[in-house]
Amino acid sequence: MITRLRSIVDEVSREHGLDQDRVAVGIGDDTASLRPTPGFETLVTCDIQVDGRHFSPSWISARKLGARCASINLSDIAAMGGLPRAALVSLALGPEPAVEDIEELYRGLCETLAIHDTILVGGNIASLFSGLVIDVTLIGEVENGRAVHRDTAAAGDLVWVTGYPGSAGTGLQLLQTGIGHGTTGKYDDFVRAYLEPVARLGEGRALGSSQAVSSMIDISDGLLGDLYHMVEGRDVGIAIREESLPLREQLKEAAIDLGRSPQSLLLRASDDYELLFTAPPANAERALLALETASSVAVWPIGEVVADAPGQVLLVGRDGRRRAAVPHGWDHFTEDDPDGA
Amino acid sequence: MITRLRSIVDEVSREHGLDQDRVAVGIGDDTASLRPTPGFETLVTCDIQVDGRHFSPSWISARKLGARCASINLSDIAAMGGLPRAALVSLALGPEPAVEDIEELYRGLCETLAIHDTILVGGNIASLFSGLVIDVTLIGEVENGRAVHRDTAAAGDLVWVTGYPGSAGTGLQLLQTGIGHGTTGKYDDFVRAYLEPVARLGEGRALGSSQAVSSMIDISDGLLGDLYHMVEGRDVGIAIREESLPLREQLKEAAIDLGRSPQSLLLRASDDYELLFTAPPANAERALLALETASSVAVWPIGEVVADAPGQVLLVGRDGRRRAAVPHGWDHFTEDDPDGA
Repeated sequence: MITRLRSIVDEVSREHGLDQDRVAVGIGDDTASLRPTPGFETLVTCDIQVDGRHFSPSWISARKLGARCASINLSDIAAMGGLPRAALVSLALGPEPAVEDIEELYRGLCETLAIHDTILVGGNIASLFSGLVIDVTLIGEVENGRAVHRDTAAAGDLVWVTGYPGSAGTGLQLLQTGIGHGTTGKYDDFVRAYLEPVARLGEGRALGSSQAVSSMIDISDGLLGDLYHMVEGRDVGIAIREESLPLREQLKEAAIDLGRSPQSLLLRASDDYELLFTAPPANAERALLALETASSVAVWPIGEVVADAPGQVLLVGRDGRRRAAVPHGWDHFTEDDPDGA
Repeated sequence: MITRLRSIVDEVSREHGLDQDRVAVGIGDDTASLRPTPGFETLVTCDIQVDGRHFSPSWISARKLGARCASINLSDIAAMGGLPRAALVSLALGPEPAVEDIEELYRGLCETLAIHDTILVGGNIASLFSGLVIDVTLIGEVENGRAVHRDTAAAGDLVWVTGYPGSAGTGLQLLQTGIGHGTTGKYDDFVRAYLEPVARLGEGRALGSSQAVSSMIDISDGLLGDLYHMVEGRDVGIAIREESLPLREQLKEAAIDLGRSPQSLLLRASDDYELLFTAPPANAERALLALETASSVAVWPIGEVVADAPGQVLLVGRDGRRRAAVPHGWDHFTEDDPDGA
């Protein structure tokens, strides 16, 4: 099994012309060994995905699942403004998954990593009584002192988000309710956002390198959840203009089918790997120019960092009325739509 | 939960006076950020442990389990001659483990890491339908080009192993059969070797730094399994002198109680974190001196690397007769004692 998986790693690395030279020792020794780039910090992140909790084999192919596990971790490096370098994967699996599925999972993982010049350098497999647990560790780099943190925005900074927040979590709910399996294809965008997320690596790197942004995070815990992560326990808050939130007609339709409020989906549905970032007004143009140069992704100015609501996220209505949003980010399946009908 | 676990990490780090300066950003951002030491390579390894496969909560306390998960990974860094630096832990857990148990697991993990100047910098928790899966990723460092690999021994090199191979695996079998739970305490050494393994970090570092050794590996897959890892697919083999193997009276007694051959336990029982290493005869004295300076661990010369049996491990009897040993290292529970009665 290990030998077969190793050959998949080699095959994909060759296909993508990966620079193996950066890796001193890959799969096969007690540890992998990497050569850090002089003048760079090392970034490390991991994410564990559990069958039946984060995904269902009936919705997603093994290959796409592998790709998804890669993207989730790549997104964390993107949000630091970093470059991904190498990954390790631990699998715990029950008797159900076929060997071919595990190979396909590896292939999907390696391919998505390879697209971003990242090599799988190690991992291990253990047997589980039932199901599948996938833990990916990703190692990246960023120039010393240039990592963009989540909690460093200052009062007066402006706040942007890329893409269409709420899409992936809406896709998940559509899958869970069976609506997403329909043949009309009208919700394909949402389902794809959940099953095939794309990490915004080029965008994150461009924003980080511009040195124009003051903080950045991905919105994997939902837009509201990650807005909170930017301010929790701090002496600043964030005021979001409701009218500036990118609410698409499609999301309104899905909300009706799901019996939810569109705003709640937009604010609370999780699993999007879009970027949420801040910059002082003086840097706004430079930040947006860097982003546009790297990508054609939509980007929305949604609010600003404020001094008078420490640790809070406020929703500002058209009438200027402010109300505090309750943060329960990823608990969106159990919530009772606090953001309105 | 995360907040509570973070405070355990901080508490243990303070107690042990860890150098937090090495870590630019710890738990709480999208990724952790580490400052590599100039002139060092980065080492990374991971190991996934599954409830009911690798451990049973009825044998081991949560704190010792955490410590054990740390040691298993520390040992991989030891076997490269490296220094451990930082760790991440992913947990997937069912509804059974109490919050206090998870806290104790974290405490045991952090304490064992801290003893070796290593900081927990990240991780995540997911829910599982049942049971407990723990995946630890460990990041270490070693001077450029000084990592000691597993497959670099040359013909004529001598082979040593530390400690008493087979102890931990024997302890596991004693636990599984219930004999290890006896009140006589006569098998405490074996049970402790399984439940409370100690990574030979000082020893591995001393051997690596001496630059006298030609290869090194830990014997977590069993002595025979890891001897194979040193030669598999290579143009050299290893000849082990049976009479040189450190066979204790205690192991003979346990073998009788388990209905196994003592030699089979010694060669095949897994989960020891002793070091297996090689050196050219001219370097032997320097290697052993480095080891003795670092540690009082027992060390045994058990054989040599040979050119005439490529890819094989040979057992050499007192009469000089050689026979090939069959490698099925960690499958020792299903094996039918191929090494004799």
